[in-house]
Amino acid sequence: MKVLVLVYPGMTAQDMVGPITALSALPGYEVQFAWKQAGPVPTDSGLSVMATHAFAETWSEPDIFFTGGGGKPTMDLLADADTLAFVASRGARAQWVTSVCTGSLILGAAGLLQGYRAACHWAVGDALAAFGAIPAHERVVIDRNRATGGGVTAGLDFGLTLVGLLAGEPFARVVELMLEYAPAPPHGCGRPDLADPATVEAALSYFAQSSPGDAIGQAAARLA
Amino acid sequence: MKVLVLVYPGMTAQDMVGPITALSALPGYEVQFAWKQAGPVPTDSGLSVMATHAFAETWSEPDIFFTGGGGKPTMDLLADADTLAFVASRGARAQWVTSVCTGSLILGAAGLLQGYRAACHWAVGDALAAFGAIPAHERVVIDRNRATGGGVTAGLDFGLTLVGLLAGEPFARVVELMLEYAPAPPHGCGRPDLADPATVEAALSYFAQSSPGDAIGQAAARLA
Repeated sequence: MKVLVLVYPGMTAQDMVGPITALSALPGYEVQFAWKQAGPVPTDSGLSVMATHAFAETWSEPDIFFTGGGGKPTMDLLADADTLAFVASRGARAQWVTSVCTGSLILGAAGLLQGYRAACHWAVGDALAAFGAIPAHERVVIDRNRATGGGVTAGLDFGLTLVGLLAGEPFARVVELMLEYAPAPPHGCGRPDLADPATVEAALSYFAQSSPGDAIGQAAARLA
Repeated sequence: MKVLVLVYPGMTAQDMVGPITALSALPGYEVQFAWKQAGPVPTDSGLSVMATHAFAETWSEPDIFFTGGGGKPTMDLLADADTLAFVASRGARAQWVTSVCTGSLILGAAGLLQGYRAACHWAVGDALAAFGAIPAHERVVIDRNRATGGGVTAGLDFGLTLVGLLAGEPFARVVELMLEYAPAPPHGCGRPDLADPATVEAALSYFAQSSPGDAIGQAAARLA
């Protein structure tokens, strides 16, 4: 089970760590972390993670290709031709093409979601339509061999769902129990329909700082 | 807000990444990742993370001291005098002494939980009593300046709870919404009381491989 993970400066570490925590329980799990060069890559939380391989040195036909998302750094990546070419090439030959959060915008900008239902972070998910995808405001979306998760913490639901599909429900139940995934969100407002208007407004203001609309519009124009 | 995080080989990456994803939203957030030497540290999922500082070079009085847990590598750490001395020294002067999952065993072995209620992973939490702690099978436990979370994914609940305590509920609600923390566990069995007996048995067998009882007993004997 060869899992190829895109890492990039400013990415949201949680988007990736939730999924690989679940997937690493799979029998035969192997993983490569890819960026333009091997070495440390800073993430959103002050944590740097190691890219193990430069793009050209990675598996050409992984079982799973995965990318997480982020804020402004992810929007910047939508204009990065080298990275999108790598994503398109590996995505075209992977058994599973997958993402969490705004990682689906990267898949979309690489042309990998045309005609597919896909999830994204709630604040920007509708923009997936610019890439020919069908936006789905769900925690985990499986459409043929595309598996996409919602925002950030949805990576846990995504990873555990994929473990169930790949290794069966009995095994996935053991993994879910080992990860003690019986969540109890302390503030009870993790979706816009659960949150008060001031909270939603504050979150939207934060996301607007990374101007996702401009980046997505330009990426969609290049793809067309 | 100086957050000092212990990192060590074989640790469970998710234990740490959930909390710092929430805490990094705090105004004035700064972070150090400490191990015996600076440089890459391998984790459970194939991901290596960067230790930014050797023990002696870290803040002596952090606002938050944090450690995550793991399986066998965490049990091995309970016999590591250098690491426990570091944990004891920073814990004694931190404003908050905190952990997720079996990280509380490390705090306990360093003598930091005597007389405190504390959480841990469900499979080994009762063993905290060996260190004079009061085991609490809860998702997040706050007792004076000790804040501890349950197993692995409880780090998200832990982090968001701490953000609420440190920066107020309105801010914490925005963070919870930005992280889209409206979980939907796909298999519905993330606690032993939610799981079928075969699933519980399989998980317990897995944990037994790291012989936590022996490691904890020996660490408690050294502490006494």
